[in-house]
Amino acid sequence: MIETRTRTGHLIDTDQLSREEMEALFERAGAIRRSPDSHRGRYEGRFAANLFFEPSTRTRLSFEVAERKLGMEVLRLDEGSSSSVKGESFYDTLRTLSSVGVEVAVIRHTGGGLLAEMAGRSPGIALVNGGEGEGGHPTQALLDLFTLHRHFGTLSGLRVAIVGDLRHSRVARSNLQALQEFGARPVLSGPEPMRDPALEKDFPYLPMDEALRQADAVMMLRIQLERHREKLITSPADYRRQFGLTPERLERMPAHGVILHPGPVNRGVEIDGELVEHPRSKIFEQMENGVWIRMAVLERAIEGGL
Amino acid sequence: MIETRTRTGHLIDTDQLSREEMEALFERAGAIRRSPDSHRGRYEGRFAANLFFEPSTRTRLSFEVAERKLGMEVLRLDEGSSSSVKGESFYDTLRTLSSVGVEVAVIRHTGGGLLAEMAGRSPGIALVNGGEGEGGHPTQALLDLFTLHRHFGTLSGLRVAIVGDLRHSRVARSNLQALQEFGARPVLSGPEPMRDPALEKDFPYLPMDEALRQADAVMMLRIQLERHREKLITSPADYRRQFGLTPERLERMPAHGVILHPGPVNRGVEIDGELVEHPRSKIFEQMENGVWIRMAVLERAIEGGL
Amino acid sequence: MIETRTRTGHLIDTDQLSREEMEALFERAGAIRRSPDSHRGRYEGRFAANLFFEPSTRTRLSFEVAERKLGMEVLRLDEGSSSSVKGESFYDTLRTLSSVGVEVAVIRHTGGGLLAEMAGRSPGIALVNGGEGEGGHPTQALLDLFTLHRHFGTLSGLRVAIVGDLRHSRVARSNLQALQEFGARPVLSGPEPMRDPALEKDFPYLPMDEALRQADAVMMLRIQLERHREKLITSPADYRRQFGLTPERLERMPAHGVILHPGPVNRGVEIDGELVEHPRSKIFEQMENGVWIRMAVLERAIEGGL
Repeated sequence: MIETRTRTGHLIDTDQLSREEMEALFERAGAIRRSPDSHRGRYEGRFAANLFFEPSTRTRLSFEVAERKLGMEVLRLDEGSSSSVKGESFYDTLRTLSSVGVEVAVIRHTGGGLLAEMAGRSPGIALVNGGEGEGGHPTQALLDLFTLHRHFGTLSGLRVAIVGDLRHSRVARSNLQALQEFGARPVLSGPEPMRDPALEKDFPYLPMDEALRQADAVMMLRIQLERHREKLITSPADYRRQFGLTPERLERMPAHGVILHPGPVNRGVEIDGELVEHPRSKIFEQMENGVWIRMAVLERAIEGGL
Repeated sequence: MIETRTRTGHLIDTDQLSREEMEALFERAGAIRRSPDSHRGRYEGRFAANLFFEPSTRTRLSFEVAERKLGMEVLRLDEGSSSSVKGESFYDTLRTLSSVGVEVAVIRHTGGGLLAEMAGRSPGIALVNGGEGEGGHPTQALLDLFTLHRHFGTLSGLRVAIVGDLRHSRVARSNLQALQEFGARPVLSGPEPMRDPALEKDFPYLPMDEALRQADAVMMLRIQLERHREKLITSPADYRRQFGLTPERLERMPAHGVILHPGPVNRGVEIDGELVEHPRSKIFEQMENGVWIRMAVLERAIEGGL
Repeated sequence: MIETRTRTGHLIDTDQLSREEMEALFERAGAIRRSPDSHRGRYEGRFAANLFFEPSTRTRLSFEVAERKLGMEVLRLDEGSSSSVKGESFYDTLRTLSSVGVEVAVIRHTGGGLLAEMAGRSPGIALVNGGEGEGGHPTQALLDLFTLHRHFGTLSGLRVAIVGDLRHSRVARSNLQALQEFGARPVLSGPEPMRDPALEKDFPYLPMDEALRQADAVMMLRIQLERHREKLITSPADYRRQFGLTPERLERMPAHGVILHPGPVNRGVEIDGELVEHPRSKIFEQMENGVWIRMAVLERAIEGGL
């Protein structure tokens, strides 16, 4: 258990995954979804550790459910803030986890690039990104695409409007990367001060109503009210009027268009409350699919690559 | 897993339970107590979530033991304070839990009526009240009555003195409701500023020594020293002199009278240390019975009603 | 489950253990290490509680892994600081744990002597010291000695240099006690203001380089930078120059000499980063051995003594 193993099961971000690898994960997640009990206890007595240095109710719970459905024992570390997570001591923490028998660590923190650095040092444990600062959030992207893939049967050519705080969204980045790999056609929209020129090199920015008009799916991003209210948006009501998904705006989408949101939702700001459980909303299905996708990602981590 | 199920397994407060339903819970708890291992793993691989927005060591541990003895996987959410728990976002949290496969949520918080409101909206998950502000604490009342029922064989006609901070006690409220349903004869006592006129419409208030004189059981309520010391009681020593259960006061009770306390105990204030493990004290038996009662309540929640 | 059992499975400190008892624990830990799966689920459905009133990532995780490898259900209490842990209420907490079915409690706190006091009152539950203030840390000492025992085949006559903050180290105290019991020959070294006259009655204090010269093993103690920087050490660089284990200093040890450190390591202060995973370092092997030793200690606790 002491020797350092080379691991290829790390999931640092979507850009490391080919289309084929993502399709394999979708197939696996679909198979687990169809017969969840057939996978129960698959990794009985094996250990996962969840290291969340930033608060996250949903992602943490989703991983914990996925781990336990696989029969894994789950250790939880909450070391306050990620400011204390520095290179050397974090490496030692991962080596300690490996020494006591942990095989996979799910990590959420703010620092850009820390996970890639750790993976490069072979800490003897598979690393799964649970949301990294303004970097990536690959399991969220995978569950979003899995949800669209299940609904539409394909992602190729799919028109997806991503609306909201593009500049600060790790969800947007990981999603755009993965959608592009599948040949989907994402477009961007959102408030002027939240636009990101880097993204607009590859993807068109459109006014809200135009973005919706041809969208097979709209991904509403969460507005970080607590962070940006002063600077970037004038008021929740203003935001809703300009970029919120309302029943009126839903009318402008094609009749087959569906709604996605990574949660947690600001009802009445980026999306109206009555749309959250609308027949065309996939929001709670996304939550459910998150468990199946994360089970597939954990399998990949344990098995050391697909 | 997505569709919203109508659940009748909620436990919001004792006033929703008929005498027959409570007796069925006592019978179930008694059966589990007699052969705990026969129930082990009954809900293997099923998920419970404990949402404690107020600190609670005992109740939380007791539920966790009950859940695990049934074989359940336990998720724990501690979202700081319950001030952040508002209607819409709390509903979304419950729907998220339901989406990832959680079947029952045990909730402790301060807000009056939040659980009843949530139950009315059918969040797809059974709700169990783990202590609601100054409202109710139904599993505490059930374990108290189960303890008395086991000891006396019946609750009908039983004289129970409830002593202490009647105004702020959720334990007192849920207990009085349930005792009344069984035809017991509760009486009240405690400091003048802690009396509650609403309760005295239905139950007599007596001076301490008189309340004890005919009591088959005395329930000493915990004094919230941290909250009330300045305002409502002059000093712990004063409180003990006037309303504390001392060996002298125990002498005034009938020889068969027993002592209950929900814990944690303020030794030397509402009850003397030497009485905590006295042969006539049921205090640690209450803790044990709490596990059996909560297993019965969780079974009821999972099965969707008795 | 209510009656108070006399327990002989407590582990309060190493001074309660004879050489034979420690050897029995080493043998048990070695057997578990050789076939970990043969012990899986040994205590299925039995409950342990971890009460850590001081932060401790490594020790807490190690115990949690040990408990779960034995099949135990693990309850976790984090009641803020140990300032709130007073005699009576702590006794009541232990009795509560016993009442709900917990059989062993692992406790870390600051107060000297609290565990011994509790053990003397027979709370109906086995107590295991997880690190007690500046008192003892017996499982750390046992895992250190187990690591040396496995490497050298014996502890008798072994020359062990213990270097660093001797005055504040619970690790040093428990280790010296146990090494003496085995007839090992420990020597001490470290900064002048961190010397402890009480220890020097029994063990020689030597200058750093002299202490290393004949050492079969060196135990580097962690410098509590956060506590002592102002008072006791001038700077991390100064500390390293005078008492840090560097590649140059390693050269002065016998070629067979090995390195131990309880972790977490301050790289570049008491030990250079490149020595942490050096072939002669036992640091991560110590972490692994900690799990086997703690499984043996928990077995002893559950079975009520060897």
